[in-house]
Amino acid sequence: MTYCVGIETDEGLVFAADTRTSASFDDVRVYRKMHVFEYPGDRVFVIMSAGNLATTQLTISRLMRDAEDPAASRSLRTFTHLYEVAEYVGEVLVASQVKMKDEAQQSGVSVQSTLILGGQIAGERPGLYMIYPLGNCIATSPETPYLQIGESKYGKPILDRILRPQTTLEDAARCALVSLDSTIRSNLSVGLPIDIALIRAGDLKITQKMRMEGDTPLYSEIHETWSRKLEAAVHSLPRFPWEPARAPEEQTSSLPPLPPRRVAPRPDPGDASGQQQ
Amino acid sequence: MTYCVGIETDEGLVFAADTRTSASFDDVRVYRKMHVFEYPGDRVFVIMSAGNLATTQLTISRLMRDAEDPAASRSLRTFTHLYEVAEYVGEVLVASQVKMKDEAQQSGVSVQSTLILGGQIAGERPGLYMIYPLGNCIATSPETPYLQIGESKYGKPILDRILRPQTTLEDAARCALVSLDSTIRSNLSVGLPIDIALIRAGDLKITQKMRMEGDTPLYSEIHETWSRKLEAAVHSLPRFPWEPARAPEEQTSSLPPLPPRRVAPRPDPGDASGQQQ
Repeated sequence: MTYCVGIETDEGLVFAADTRTSASFDDVRVYRKMHVFEYPGDRVFVIMSAGNLATTQLTISRLMRDAEDPAASRSLRTFTHLYEVAEYVGEVLVASQVKMKDEAQQSGVSVQSTLILGGQIAGERPGLYMIYPLGNCIATSPETPYLQIGESKYGKPILDRILRPQTTLEDAARCALVSLDSTIRSNLSVGLPIDIALIRAGDLKITQKMRMEGDTPLYSEIHETWSRKLEAAVHSLPRFPWEPARAPEEQTSSLPPLPPRRVAPRPDPGDASGQQQ
Repeated sequence: MTYCVGIETDEGLVFAADTRTSASFDDVRVYRKMHVFEYPGDRVFVIMSAGNLATTQLTISRLMRDAEDPAASRSLRTFTHLYEVAEYVGEVLVASQVKMKDEAQQSGVSVQSTLILGGQIAGERPGLYMIYPLGNCIATSPETPYLQIGESKYGKPILDRILRPQTTLEDAARCALVSLDSTIRSNLSVGLPIDIALIRAGDLKITQKMRMEGDTPLYSEIHETWSRKLEAAVHSLPRFPWEPARAPEEQTSSLPPLPPRRVAPRPDPGDASGQQQ
C-alpha cells in the first residue's frame, strides 16, 4: 500500500508521499514515490505513484527517456498545456501496464498503477490531476482541492475539514503531514520517511522540498504535539447539557492539564485487564 | 454501512452509533442500532450492531424475549460475569444468522452481523466486547480502549490520538461525536441522527442518553466549530525551516483569522476552473 496526497490552493501546489513498498508483511522496502521533473523557468512537474512498483518505474523511466531526447516528438517538454501532459502520462502508464501484463502472464498480480500529476507550464496556472490505470484523468476543483492515492481513508477527514483555495501553502503542507502521520499510525503498509514538495504558483521550479524521517524536528514535533492540540480542541468543544459550566480559567486555557498518554511505568496489568474481575 | 464506536475509560463506558441503514443508494432508512437493556441497580447493557438488519433485529428480539421470561435458564439477567453475557449474545447471534442463512438460500446476501456489547453487572467493573459473526469476541484493553464496527477508518485517527484510560467520560463522548461527524462527512451510508449513551462506572444504569439530529445545538456546534479548531491547531504547528518566525501576537492567538470555508457568493466558476487556462 501507499499514501500520497496532492493539494492545490490559490498559492500553488503541495505534494506529500510516504516511501514504503511492501509485497507482504515480511517484504518491506523504502522506495521514492515522488518523482520530480524540473525545467526551471519553463515548466515543473511532480508525479506520485501508487500501485505496482515495476509499472511505476517503467513509466517514470520512459517519461525521463523521452524528456531527455531532443528529437522526441512528444515528451514532458513538448506540450503547452498541463492537461495534454496528463493525457500523455496516462498513455505512457497504460503502455507500461500492457507490457507488464504480457510478461506477468496473468499470474494474479495486479500490474496497475494510479498517479497524481501536478505542476505548472509557463503561461498557465498550476494544475493537479489524478491519472487512473485506464489512462484517463480528473483534475482538482475549488470544491475538492486535493487528490489522494493509496490508503486514503484515515487521512481524509483532516483534509476535508481544513483545505480550501484560500489556505496558505505552508498550512496546506502542515495539513498534509498530519494526514500522512494519521495514516502511518493506522496502516502498517504506509511508512516513513515522508517526501514533501511545494510549488508556489509562478515559481516554475520546486519551491521547497524535504524528506522527513521520524527524527526530523518538524515531523517529530508534529507527531508529538498534534495529539495534545487535538485533546485541547476536543476538551474545548461545547458541554453536554448535564455537565457543569466550564470554569472561567479553563475556558481561556488553550491546553488544559490532561494526563500524558504514556504514564509512569506501572505493573504489567497482564491478561486480567481485558477480563472481568 | 454503519458506524458505531464503544469506548471504555476509567470513568465508564461511552457508546455512539449512527442510524442509517441502506440496501442501496436509493433504499435508505433510519433504524436504531443502539439497544439498551437496563435493570437499574443490578445490571445494564448496551448492544450496537453493524451488518444485516434482519439478523440484528432477530438477535435483539430473542435477547429481549429471554430476558423477559422469568423461567429462562439463560438470559441477559442470569449471568454473573459480563464475559458470559458476551458468550451468550454471541450464541444468539450465530443462531440468528443460521436461521437467516437457511431462509435466504444462498441468495448472495450476507446475513452476518457484528456487535459491540458493553455494560456492567453489580460486583464487577464495566466492560466492553466486540462480538464477531462467528460468535467469538474480544474485549478492550488499556492500550486499545475503544472498539469500532462498520465504516471504521475515517473516524479512527481521532480516537487513536486522544483516547486513553484517563480520558474523562464526557471528553470521550465528545471525541466519539467528532469521530462520527468525520465519518458521516465521508461515507454517504453513515448518517444522522446519532445515538449516544454514557454509563458511569457503578451507576448500574444508563447515566445519560441523547439522540442528536443535525440541528441539536451540541452537535451542530461540534459540526461547525471543529473545523475552526483544527485549522487553528494546524496553523500553530511548527514552522518549516524556510518560513519566517511567527509574530508574537500570532503565537498567543488561539484562533487566527483564517478565511471562512464558505466565502461570499461569487460567480459560478463553471467547468473552466477544473481546466487549464
